[in-house]
Amino acid sequence: MTQLQSYIAGRWIGSQPAQALRSAIDGAVVAHTHDEAIDFGEALHYARTTGLAAMRQTDFQQRAGMLKALAKYLGERKEEMYALSFHTGATRTDGWVDIEGGTGTLFAYASMAKELPPAGNLWHEGPQVPLGKTGAFAGTHVLVPRGGVAVHINAFNFPVWGLLEKFAPTFLAGMPCIGKPATATNFLTEKLVRLVNDSGILPEGALQLVIGGTGDLLNRLDVRDVVTFTGSADTAAKLRVTPNLVAKSIPFNAEADSLNCAILAPDVTTDDEEFDLFVKEIAREMTQKAGQKCTAIRRALVPADKIDAVAAKLKERLAKTTVGDPRLENVRMGALASKAQQADVAERVATLRQGAEVVFGGGGEGFAPVGEGVGEGAFFQPTLLLARDPQGHAAHDVEAFGPVSTLMPYNGIDEAIALAAKGQGSLAGTLVTKDSATAAQAIAELASMHGRLQVLDRVAAPESTGHGSALPYLKHGGPGRAGGGEELGGLRAVKHLMQRAAVQGSPAMLAAVTGDNAA
Amino acid sequence: MTQLQSYIAGRWIGSQPAQALRSAIDGAVVAHTHDEAIDFGEALHYARTTGLAAMRQTDFQQRAGMLKALAKYLGERKEEMYALSFHTGATRTDGWVDIEGGTGTLFAYASMAKELPPAGNLWHEGPQVPLGKTGAFAGTHVLVPRGGVAVHINAFNFPVWGLLEKFAPTFLAGMPCIGKPATATNFLTEKLVRLVNDSGILPEGALQLVIGGTGDLLNRLDVRDVVTFTGSADTAAKLRVTPNLVAKSIPFNAEADSLNCAILAPDVTTDDEEFDLFVKEIAREMTQKAGQKCTAIRRALVPADKIDAVAAKLKERLAKTTVGDPRLENVRMGALASKAQQADVAERVATLRQGAEVVFGGGGEGFAPVGEGVGEGAFFQPTLLLARDPQGHAAHDVEAFGPVSTLMPYNGIDEAIALAAKGQGSLAGTLVTKDSATAAQAIAELASMHGRLQVLDRVAAPESTGHGSALPYLKHGGPGRAGGGEELGGLRAVKHLMQRAAVQGSPAMLAAVTGDNAA
Repeated sequence: MTQLQSYIAGRWIGSQPAQALRSAIDGAVVAHTHDEAIDFGEALHYARTTGLAAMRQTDFQQRAGMLKALAKYLGERKEEMYALSFHTGATRTDGWVDIEGGTGTLFAYASMAKELPPAGNLWHEGPQVPLGKTGAFAGTHVLVPRGGVAVHINAFNFPVWGLLEKFAPTFLAGMPCIGKPATATNFLTEKLVRLVNDSGILPEGALQLVIGGTGDLLNRLDVRDVVTFTGSADTAAKLRVTPNLVAKSIPFNAEADSLNCAILAPDVTTDDEEFDLFVKEIAREMTQKAGQKCTAIRRALVPADKIDAVAAKLKERLAKTTVGDPRLENVRMGALASKAQQADVAERVATLRQGAEVVFGGGGEGFAPVGEGVGEGAFFQPTLLLARDPQGHAAHDVEAFGPVSTLMPYNGIDEAIALAAKGQGSLAGTLVTKDSATAAQAIAELASMHGRLQVLDRVAAPESTGHGSALPYLKHGGPGRAGGGEELGGLRAVKHLMQRAAVQGSPAMLAAVTGDNAA
Repeated sequence: MTQLQSYIAGRWIGSQPAQALRSAIDGAVVAHTHDEAIDFGEALHYARTTGLAAMRQTDFQQRAGMLKALAKYLGERKEEMYALSFHTGATRTDGWVDIEGGTGTLFAYASMAKELPPAGNLWHEGPQVPLGKTGAFAGTHVLVPRGGVAVHINAFNFPVWGLLEKFAPTFLAGMPCIGKPATATNFLTEKLVRLVNDSGILPEGALQLVIGGTGDLLNRLDVRDVVTFTGSADTAAKLRVTPNLVAKSIPFNAEADSLNCAILAPDVTTDDEEFDLFVKEIAREMTQKAGQKCTAIRRALVPADKIDAVAAKLKERLAKTTVGDPRLENVRMGALASKAQQADVAERVATLRQGAEVVFGGGGEGFAPVGEGVGEGAFFQPTLLLARDPQGHAAHDVEAFGPVSTLMPYNGIDEAIALAAKGQGSLAGTLVTKDSATAAQAIAELASMHGRLQVLDRVAAPESTGHGSALPYLKHGGPGRAGGGEELGGLRAVKHLMQRAAVQGSPAMLAAVTGDNAA
């Protein structure tokens, strides 16, 4: 049993236990948050002095080198994280997405930095545009560090990746960062930050950790700072209107879970390889991380004449999925992160069942996860619903953040696109089709309501990274309900965390400012 | 005397006079707003049906062609706009910035479209990134029309440019637009929209006009829509938290007036050409549009040992500036937009005078604008203050939106940079220097708090577009107090008004979606 500590202003804080955090497997207490209040004024002061000074003494390439070294260091110590990851309910495979997905993102950003300037902290974003006829006056754009602090507020489902995927571009952008993981699984994030700290690779002040609430942190932020949030749409809406953030136009980037869909296109027959790919994709998205991914497929749209075939196949597949203690080798799906999540998912499934048939699961009797003490764990049976009349069904609006998905029949691809849009903005979507003309038409339509879209067919399948995986090189974040933000997407993420300014002057002056040779 | 009308759902609405709008020159009533309420449900429905259908039937290049034709059409009818522009208080030169600046922006966006796809409405934003080892799966990004409506809420100071600089990228991006100009000068915007409408160049539904308040418009918006706002920081903060916008993550781009500064660098001597350039730039920014530009120089930072020399030169220059009826040929500065603005500026000058000397003006006795009936006009004397102790002076926080600027002494460029930052985020800044090393250092520092920075010297001066001018190819918008938004900046503005989605799949599928040949 661990006494968790916050890492603030260069020291670990916390010796008095507060909230008990329990293993998702068996309910045993694995850690306590600390009772000591954090002085956020001190944390910010430290970031603005020690942290910013360290950033100014490094350049893009040096920081990229540190990211790479850190990724390597953490990779060598990943087992320490896996050991704790199980207690979040994650299987080894789930943990891989979180832990090695996290270090992989560090590697990816270290590698992307080869396109950043070879020295310094000013990034010239051309082209240079002449603003007169003789060439005496021209304009261009530069990106510079904001000179402030990034506050990253994260969700409970990716305790490692969640922090690292934000930290990597933030650090490249030259901003000190304060991470605040969700409480339920912050014992794993605390382990991560201890490892980071032990490595001695990062400059002091680059990363601070908050165990517990954010207190008055957001009220103390300044115009140069930035806030990112990953979590529910409701909390995002609440935090976004924090008067201090609004008054100072402090950027607030939100990434909220959404009612993502997968569409089986009309061209796919039940005999096609793509039919099985669709079924597998739904099943995997339901069971990976026990469905606790903001990108997971919540709505599976199927041509009406194939809906029963899909339902039957999925039922068969889900029935074979062993649920239980994620440390056991034969277990394919672990637990939800906490008993609170278990209750929440059960409540939402009750809502979703109105107007829907239960194809599989439902969380009732007969569900018996394997392993010792799992009766006190946060397990939930994979649950597949079928809403035969999908137009007004709750699945477009109510998200059960667990292994839960709803099948919906449609007639004609236009109806599928319209149903997809009922999610009011999603992080991810998948279209399974063999037909490139269908892909061209549907993706162009779906794109306005999605952050990322996968076209899945037998060609792509062997290398597909999957519907739910956010990747460093591709944009993560969607419109509307998904929060309207953008993360990752290659160096776009670094740009979002820097400040862009147009610069005008003589070509000689612009060359001096941008560090380029004569224009 | 004109009865103004809104242009909603394909027809002009309004026959009952409501608010009287007065000429800034002599207080004579020039127009009335209308009393009839606008049905914003109807306006949005029209935009979403007729407007969006028209957008789908055109592509980037066709819309660019329309922008060019429109720019030409408006250019040929500019005198009709100039005639009304005088009543906003603008001289012919001021009107040029607004009217020909507006049509010039249309031309510029029409021209930029050559970098947009030759057909269709999907914009491929590469590069395509391999996501596996065999090349079977890859990812890229596309930008597509949002499928919603843009609501543009504008300030009173640029009744023509204000609408056109937003309309041009919006139209290219394939969004119908509802423009809401500020009431004080909307008689000129109404004329513009009548001309646009008479031209018959735009498809029906592409542009609607609101004369009067926005009523329940923002509450009726949807996830696909977008709002832009230009005006005061206070109003921006108020509108930004509209619950419907927050709940649906509807993008809200704000461009707020700010406490912009110009810095005379320490290397410039009183004998240098650059010394005179600095003085001229301050004087021009004070008097152009009677200082009613959100980019105008409100704080002029001068090395302490040259502050009196600058003050003396500026006083001399301002004393020669003829203020009065903007229709008179000898007049160099016109009126504020309204009596309300006149009162507001007077009140703020009273605040700014605390802790400052009046170098010139002050708006007191002895100020006599030229022309007939100007006693009832909205004139305000150019007013230059000098705050010898600038650290805590109100000029860093209080903006008199008129011909008002405050001189401040500094010691050493680092202090100048620190004083500049006290504006808490600005749209524009100017550094006057001969020394490229000073420019390189200072611009890198200033960039994090500015949207646009001009380096002014004798080389650039002959072609300089001036501190205050927002240009189509350069970003307009600054951090913090300036609202945190981005407008213009070339095709960046079009991107901001489209939706970006990552797309994954086999190279063949990606080629089909993006319209590119084999990857």
